[in-house]
Amino acid sequence: MQETIRIIGIDPGLRRTGWGIIESLGNSLRFVGSGTVRSEQDADLATRLCQLHDGLATIIHHHMPHEAAVEQTFVNKDATATLKLGQARGIAMLVPARAGLPVAEYAPNAVKKTVIGVGHGDKKQIHMMVKVLMPKATFDTDDAADALAIAICHAHHRQSVSGRLAAALQAGG
Amino acid sequence: MQETIRIIGIDPGLRRTGWGIIESLGNSLRFVGSGTVRSEQDADLATRLCQLHDGLATIIHHHMPHEAAVEQTFVNKDATATLKLGQARGIAMLVPARAGLPVAEYAPNAVKKTVIGVGHGDKKQIHMMVKVLMPKATFDTDDAADALAIAICHAHHRQSVSGRLAAALQAGG
Repeated sequence: MQETIRIIGIDPGLRRTGWGIIESLGNSLRFVGSGTVRSEQDADLATRLCQLHDGLATIIHHHMPHEAAVEQTFVNKDATATLKLGQARGIAMLVPARAGLPVAEYAPNAVKKTVIGVGHGDKKQIHMMVKVLMPKATFDTDDAADALAIAICHAHHRQSVSGRLAAALQAGG
Repeated sequence: MQETIRIIGIDPGLRRTGWGIIESLGNSLRFVGSGTVRSEQDADLATRLCQLHDGLATIIHHHMPHEAAVEQTFVNKDATATLKLGQARGIAMLVPARAGLPVAEYAPNAVKKTVIGVGHGDKKQIHMMVKVLMPKATFDTDDAADALAIAICHAHHRQSVSGRLAAALQAGG
């Protein structure tokens, strides 16, 4: 018997961290919720990281997902931006891990390939496919939509992994 | 009457995060402790960030410092290294902030300028000056020695700030 898996996808950022929660049962996906955790731009860095921490911790405590997936940050040429993103990403990985969730990572092009079929594409295409796959999905920001796409990507790949594992076990037995 | 301030300095890194705790009373410094929190290199990233978190949280819980100072990471050309450092640094700022400590940041050259008198110099010079300033200081790694230097830097600058503030208040009164 298949079991319903509740997944939180997280798109980390210091200013805005998007989150999206879905349920996966076999091949079907169900939208649970999404939103954006913000930090105050004029607060000091330590305070902002606490704000991201507390926002994500509240959401995980409330929705009780089983597994987490975090976007593997795009490393661009701007080292200062990369450092900021790294700091936010550290929090985005820590909070679900401390809550006992396994945390998977997906590169942006893996997310795009899973959701829209190719490894490139703009935000609009991702938003459209999120709505096609889960018509009831709503999102307040691009970051929340991206977080839902990351959750969808994990729903797809975790099945592949467990499917391969089951096949391997059967072959072995 | 002057009060003793207990300061934790943190030199963040994913593999090794150095920490050093000192007490500052007027112009005198006292060594309290130092060490290195490590994460397992073969563990996944989320687990490693949890290990850094738990290690730092234990030390802060045990030593109860009043204020924290974290090294402002050197941003080098290698974006992957910068991202890793950013993730570790996010944890190094979060843990003291969540424990209610004010968290100051110092650039490496500010630390060097405070401890050895110039904005450049090698690790050996920093270690030597840490021993000159606090003969009882011990450290197990370069990261722990750097963390003590960061704590010393904060002891110096926090006094300057409060000294200037006191002078301004007196001038105003």
